[in-house]
Amino acid sequence: MTEIDVKQRILAANEAAAAEVRARYRGDGTLVINLISSPGSGKTTLLEKTVARLGGRLRLAAIEGDIATERDADRLRAAGIPARQILTGGACHLDARQVQGALADAAFPPLDVLLIENVGNLICPTSYDLGEDLKVALLSVAEGDDKPFKYPAIFSRARVTVITKVDLLPHVEFDIAAVKEQVSVLNPAGRLLATSARSGEGMAEWCGLLEELLAAKRAART
Amino acid sequence: MTEIDVKQRILAANEAAAAEVRARYRGDGTLVINLISSPGSGKTTLLEKTVARLGGRLRLAAIEGDIATERDADRLRAAGIPARQILTGGACHLDARQVQGALADAAFPPLDVLLIENVGNLICPTSYDLGEDLKVALLSVAEGDDKPFKYPAIFSRARVTVITKVDLLPHVEFDIAAVKEQVSVLNPAGRLLATSARSGEGMAEWCGLLEELLAAKRAART
Repeated sequence: MTEIDVKQRILAANEAAAAEVRARYRGDGTLVINLISSPGSGKTTLLEKTVARLGGRLRLAAIEGDIATERDADRLRAAGIPARQILTGGACHLDARQVQGALADAAFPPLDVLLIENVGNLICPTSYDLGEDLKVALLSVAEGDDKPFKYPAIFSRARVTVITKVDLLPHVEFDIAAVKEQVSVLNPAGRLLATSARSGEGMAEWCGLLEELLAAKRAART
Repeated sequence: MTEIDVKQRILAANEAAAAEVRARYRGDGTLVINLISSPGSGKTTLLEKTVARLGGRLRLAAIEGDIATERDADRLRAAGIPARQILTGGACHLDARQVQGALADAAFPPLDVLLIENVGNLICPTSYDLGEDLKVALLSVAEGDDKPFKYPAIFSRARVTVITKVDLLPHVEFDIAAVKEQVSVLNPAGRLLATSARSGEGMAEWCGLLEELLAAKRAART
């Protein structure tokens, strides 16, 4: 069996598990989000602030992917929602079977939105469908405005790109218009939001978008 | 052949190529550095500033790894040194055979220091020896001070950790002492530097360390 055969077999097994996750949440209309970014772009912080704004009226839960440490799930539980950590033990992305295992172990109550935070990596998670409704790519302004063209796969596939840490814009070189241009080339239908968890800028738009996507999924069911 | 067999075969082939790169540069005493970090931690900028400080007295060249775009090699050539881009076409790390191919194509003149900038990824590059003398891990203060324990493999193996963008410290939550503590647990012999390419802080120490390592390699040869 060649290297390519092995990769294809792994991806086929992942697709089967992803289809099961998707079927499970199609029935009850839970919106499932797969958040992907570099380490330190602010995924966990975005989720903490999302819980603060939406936790009172939507039923949220989180699955947190990491190489090591339970830190992120602890942070989401402290924010007030059920959360399950997946430790990949070195692997550079989550896969759908790990998500199935986490869902079985966590036994979350009925949900409106399931938030899956992938391992911090702008490359490997892109290839693995977790059964989500959409991928969300995060890009912090501290990372530089050349990243969409340098990491085109994720910015092509993410229905939403969230620029984070815009409170740092006065202190870094980052041209939001350049990022919009790159994302519009890679993904003409993609949405782009500019946010700061610290100042709150863009957080109402982000939370509004989640509610809009949830309503659209539920409307499509009927 | 199982998935594990394939992975082991790939790593064995990589080790063989890495040994050839290492032997090539043992003979002429060229110091070879493998820089690893998240996307946007400032690897290319650190190299540009290194060229500005050391390019006058050391013979430098760069191999730049990326998924897509020739941008980084262009930046290093503009800084004044020969540079060769390796486009991985989606792969999440460089491997030693790609480095061999780039060296054959580039036909660099005799060098003092070969700077290899890996693909922006804090996970996958860690497993692939490129024939370097040492790995250098970069961590920007915008990424957060919890990263060494979250990505322990690279911070265990990097002989040097360079904290970058310390000019942003007044604007972010980042405790350098916490990072030092984590790195000292993972890698008791590791060196740690705090730098800002923008303000120049720590750049003399970084360049001095490269010269010290180069001198040590040459002294060991004799």
